Amino acid sequence: MRFPRAIANLIDSFAQLPSVGPKTAERYVFYLLKSSPDKIYNLAKALGELKNNITVCNNCLVLSENNPCPICSDQNRKNGTLCIVENTQDLLSLEATKQYKGQYFVLDGLINTIEDIKPEQLNIEKLLRRIKQDNFQEVIIALNFTLEGESTSLYLNKILQNYNLKITRLAKGLPAGSDLEYADENTLAMALKYRIETK
Amino acid sequence: MRFPRAIANLIDSFAQLPSVGPKTAERYVFYLLKSSPDKIYNLAKALGELKNNITVCNNCLVLSENNPCPICSDQNRKNGTLCIVENTQDLLSLEATKQYKGQYFVLDGLINTIEDIKPEQLNIEKLLRRIKQDNFQEVIIALNFTLEGESTSLYLNKILQNYNLKITRLAKGLPAGSDLEYADENTLAMALKYRIETK
Repeated sequence: MRFPRAIANLIDSFAQLPSVGPKTAERYVFYLLKSSPDKIYNLAKALGELKNNITVCNNCLVLSENNPCPICSDQNRKNGTLCIVENTQDLLSLEATKQYKGQYFVLDGLINTIEDIKPEQLNIEKLLRRIKQDNFQEVIIALNFTLEGESTSLYLNKILQNYNLKITRLAKGLPAGSDLEYADENTLAMALKYRIETK
Repeated sequence: MRFPRAIANLIDSFAQLPSVGPKTAERYVFYLLKSSPDKIYNLAKALGELKNNITVCNNCLVLSENNPCPICSDQNRKNGTLCIVENTQDLLSLEATKQYKGQYFVLDGLINTIEDIKPEQLNIEKLLRRIKQDNFQEVIIALNFTLEGESTSLYLNKILQNYNLKITRLAKGLPAGSDLEYADENTLAMALKYRIETK
């Protein structure tokens, strides 16, 4: 006897999620089988709604239930600042800080030579169109401090030189609550280099 | 801006799966958003089928698409041996070895004093009814060699003494492909104690 077909199918489907192998997928399925039918129904329903209710904002390319998204349709946020992020998750992380009151643009990826992702595959053309059309004073490049994030930032920095814009990047330094003893050399070097004058 | 409702709902649903936190759930959702709509549809469909197509075999209590299950309805497997397992997964693991040709019984849990799972909560009454009704010569107790598995095995061993049955348990010893150097003391002691005569 093998897994009943309905179980095997769901294991296969779960196993396609990132970093979920067949054993983890099996655990999910047997967990669901043990829990109330409501839980299975809710998950299936939520999947259906994801498919039907999520769209892309035409203006900033964030995933949203509305087009334009709540940020783009909020007139108060048109303060002349545009923050460039890699994806919707990063945008929401920045929103969670409640510190940023401007607008966003989602690149939907980073330049990656290993995975052969070239600048043409990102939304750079749309970004330039947006910058030409709206009247921004500042562009904040808020990409990861990884190899891919750094090369994309350099690339953006270069092509945005032709526009009359202030270009900034997020600060580098020690994370909040961190311990100097356990900080890596690069971070510590960066924290020293970009030290802040307090008096 | 927070997560759009459809995304937040699906994150909540995924986060209820075992060992899935909100961050992992978020990864799943954004992975699905990036992949083809087919993948979402297939997962939702597989969930629906799980709910509708899986039942419990009345005879051995395994999860199956049929009642009785393929093993219980197979006359060739009525060879007088009953193997007691904790759950459907363990049953399928044993089946995968292709070494066992008898029948099964699923306890659906183990005695657990910490989680307050008592013998009455397991399918022991049904097990005894099955043993009385069918004509078994041997009962193999195939439970985990954990604290819970051991205490359940001891309990079963005790209550099955009243029946005219041979009672066996799975062999303890070194796992296949293992290295003596890295084996723990208990396993090694067991491997010595239950050593097999080869000549």
